[in-house]
Amino acid sequence: MCMTVGDIAQLVGGTVAGDSSLPITGVNGIKEAQAGDLTFVRSARYLPLIFSTKASAVLIAEQPEGKTPSLILCSQPDLAFAQVLQCFSQRQTQHPSGIHPTAVIGENVILGQDVALDAHVYITSECEIGARTVIYPGVYIGRRVKIGEDTVIYPNVVLREDTEIGSRCILHAGAVLGSDGFGFAPLAGQWMKIPQIGRVVVEDDVEIGSNTTIDRATFGVTRIRRGTKIDNLVQIGHNVEIGEHCALAGMVGVSGSVMIGNHVQLGAGVGIAGHIDIGEKARVGARSGVHKSVAPGAIVSGYPAIEHEKFLRVVAVSRNLPEWTRRVRQLERQVEALEKQLLHE
Amino acid sequence: MCMTVGDIAQLVGGTVAGDSSLPITGVNGIKEAQAGDLTFVRSARYLPLIFSTKASAVLIAEQPEGKTPSLILCSQPDLAFAQVLQCFSQRQTQHPSGIHPTAVIGENVILGQDVALDAHVYITSECEIGARTVIYPGVYIGRRVKIGEDTVIYPNVVLREDTEIGSRCILHAGAVLGSDGFGFAPLAGQWMKIPQIGRVVVEDDVEIGSNTTIDRATFGVTRIRRGTKIDNLVQIGHNVEIGEHCALAGMVGVSGSVMIGNHVQLGAGVGIAGHIDIGEKARVGARSGVHKSVAPGAIVSGYPAIEHEKFLRVVAVSRNLPEWTRRVRQLERQVEALEKQLLHE
Amino acid sequence: MCMTVGDIAQLVGGTVAGDSSLPITGVNGIKEAQAGDLTFVRSARYLPLIFSTKASAVLIAEQPEGKTPSLILCSQPDLAFAQVLQCFSQRQTQHPSGIHPTAVIGENVILGQDVALDAHVYITSECEIGARTVIYPGVYIGRRVKIGEDTVIYPNVVLREDTEIGSRCILHAGAVLGSDGFGFAPLAGQWMKIPQIGRVVVEDDVEIGSNTTIDRATFGVTRIRRGTKIDNLVQIGHNVEIGEHCALAGMVGVSGSVMIGNHVQLGAGVGIAGHIDIGEKARVGARSGVHKSVAPGAIVSGYPAIEHEKFLRVVAVSRNLPEWTRRVRQLERQVEALEKQLLHE
Repeated sequence: MCMTVGDIAQLVGGTVAGDSSLPITGVNGIKEAQAGDLTFVRSARYLPLIFSTKASAVLIAEQPEGKTPSLILCSQPDLAFAQVLQCFSQRQTQHPSGIHPTAVIGENVILGQDVALDAHVYITSECEIGARTVIYPGVYIGRRVKIGEDTVIYPNVVLREDTEIGSRCILHAGAVLGSDGFGFAPLAGQWMKIPQIGRVVVEDDVEIGSNTTIDRATFGVTRIRRGTKIDNLVQIGHNVEIGEHCALAGMVGVSGSVMIGNHVQLGAGVGIAGHIDIGEKARVGARSGVHKSVAPGAIVSGYPAIEHEKFLRVVAVSRNLPEWTRRVRQLERQVEALEKQLLHE
Repeated sequence: MCMTVGDIAQLVGGTVAGDSSLPITGVNGIKEAQAGDLTFVRSARYLPLIFSTKASAVLIAEQPEGKTPSLILCSQPDLAFAQVLQCFSQRQTQHPSGIHPTAVIGENVILGQDVALDAHVYITSECEIGARTVIYPGVYIGRRVKIGEDTVIYPNVVLREDTEIGSRCILHAGAVLGSDGFGFAPLAGQWMKIPQIGRVVVEDDVEIGSNTTIDRATFGVTRIRRGTKIDNLVQIGHNVEIGEHCALAGMVGVSGSVMIGNHVQLGAGVGIAGHIDIGEKARVGARSGVHKSVAPGAIVSGYPAIEHEKFLRVVAVSRNLPEWTRRVRQLERQVEALEKQLLHE
Repeated sequence: MCMTVGDIAQLVGGTVAGDSSLPITGVNGIKEAQAGDLTFVRSARYLPLIFSTKASAVLIAEQPEGKTPSLILCSQPDLAFAQVLQCFSQRQTQHPSGIHPTAVIGENVILGQDVALDAHVYITSECEIGARTVIYPGVYIGRRVKIGEDTVIYPNVVLREDTEIGSRCILHAGAVLGSDGFGFAPLAGQWMKIPQIGRVVVEDDVEIGSNTTIDRATFGVTRIRRGTKIDNLVQIGHNVEIGEHCALAGMVGVSGSVMIGNHVQLGAGVGIAGHIDIGEKARVGARSGVHKSVAPGAIVSGYPAIEHEKFLRVVAVSRNLPEWTRRVRQLERQVEALEKQLLHE
């Protein structure tokens, strides 16, 4: 694939400072880029690298002083770069097509136009799969599962019975949706299984990471609303509801019956205790453990999580605790001396 | 499926306060329930909802004052509800049956009566699978694996060679049992692999979550005793032994050679350091990191984990650390002033 | 299999104290060992067990006083034991061989001599697989994947397109390599996907645990250098580079663009924030959260991670915080009394 610097400027709505006719044959990070590559600078931290990069052209918000490669000036260089990446990735992505002869398809399955079912896919019965949806090898699809259009399901994903997936979703390899929630009642020193007869609903434009697990509801629905992105090795318990356009980083764990509002962001490794609410647009710092509800718009951190600004102050003091104990001991000696002195006077 | 309120009262050994003849066609949470549904109230927190629920009947321990739907009074409403759920779930669960033609079965495999092997299942050689055990698509079963009766193994589970699974177990999708333990010895700046020639034994009535991993022992056995329930994305290291009727919530990690007694409960995200003992009936709070042995019956929390009551006090103080440092600084000023005053007198 | 004590001493370069002709038929831990077994003692902690073990022979560095089983004296008993384990494990490991008729192989795939492809393996097109590499059932191998010689890939592993795996690697069941990195740019309240067009490269002699996930780079390469060992349920983000001969314990999470030097050790459950460097030979304590770069050779712990020695002191004080607040309150009372006294004088 080849575009010129001018082609790219036009694509992203930017203006060229340099040679518009230069051919661009690849995209790369500013350190790794070679001649022919396009790169980008988003933050001041990487700005100095613009003078040494081997890239042929750089997407950037403002023209710096000094000798640089050809520049494409645009207001949001990272977004512009994502757009260019999409052009270049279309060349690379070659999803399977057609129905592989080793795919097993049960009764009363409705397949939309141009659905791809690759080798060793297993579709149970009474399923519906929308047009142009691509299902990679080894995927298991249980009874009565419904999948929208233009969704991609990577190898070895498991969708248990009654799960519903929207359109334009991406399910990465090894994800498991619709397993039984972890529900047991204690009975005479043993655990009695509480049947999990609900299901999982994933709305449109959701992406779910590799080996992530989302449990079906005890009854009712575990729901991931449209536009939400979930990273790898995340665990979502039964009866959880996650709002629209949220982002859950890797290894997040959300316990049962948690309600998460729209536009919430959970950092890597965050854990949310059961039966609490995380308000709209709230953000939780990486590795925090949240055990009570978080107000809309709040930013919390730590374990147990508290207001982020306060967390930073607490951490700062915590690190100096040995120094503080020294000061308290010193005070005790001084006060003791003062008390003796006053007693003797 | 349809039962009357009276049928259900009889099933759970409760008494009806209201209309025994009312038909019940479903079960649901108290907020989600509609006409025809049965729901339950376990704690005072949800009690007010009984006056507004649309459910036709409610399982509850004591009759509240005020106008409610029909009630079924019973001592443990959650257990009773689980019993009713089991009735309703029997309708839904339709496990595969028979031997699918794409299943691959090696030599000297002994299959009990009515074993189900679904599509693309792979059974190596010298395995034994007990009566009525159900194996979903894509499951891999290594050499010399033994599985008891009435066990259910969901799609894409991997059981490496010599693993042993009891009767009435449930293994959720993507779980991996019997992989090599993580054992290496340092040798001239490199890692020399210590062969892992032990195995995994899972006793009767154990449930194991999706994408959970349980490693084979270096030698001897990694053992999960009967009745224990393990959630999703849990990691159990080599040579671990977990007692009877334990509960391990999601994302727990248990390092090698840990011994866990009977009836232990580990909260979500707990980590246990290697070579320690967790005594019978001990409980570990969510996200705690345990680095030394825990006495039977103890309740511990935090990282590193300490006695739970103490943990709560430490957390309470921790949050006010900036305030305490302010008070220490104030004391220093006061003491300095006192010292000056005494000096000048 | 049977060796004599003398055979084993010769194998490990040790000397016998006891009966060289004794037959050894198995290996086991010092507690579990029975007659005919070899065991080992590495640390003083287990030394007392040497007088009660049922093992026929013990690998040990120095001969203790008292009556023991036959001893094989050698400088590094654990390494020697690993060597013996390797002998005994060769008997047990029986990898599949040949090309199973249900394996699906795409166009332009180059298979080295004696490659084993077991049932339901799927190899897309333009792949190269080196001599004697073994691929277990249910593995998916995307386009243009290259795998070296003598590598073992356990069931249901997924290698997405363009992934490269070295020689003598071991990939445990359910691992997913080459999924899209978690990259999104905010755009008008939604998440715009940043295409991930890079790839994953795993060098020689690397071992990767069950259900571990390693994401492809946004562009360029996510790289695991030779000799590194990674445990189960580990998450490696896009554009990460991990050095040679590192060890990453279970449930470690490494965020995007982290650079890890050679010989680094990360304890179980450690999280590393994005875009930082972990210097050569650094070590991070279990469950720590590292949010800024770590110097070569440093040992850090805690959340946020600090120098390990300091962490231990901080933890020691933290546990006594309620006591320290009591002492501060006491000081306040004393100082107040002193101030009153001086005022009245």
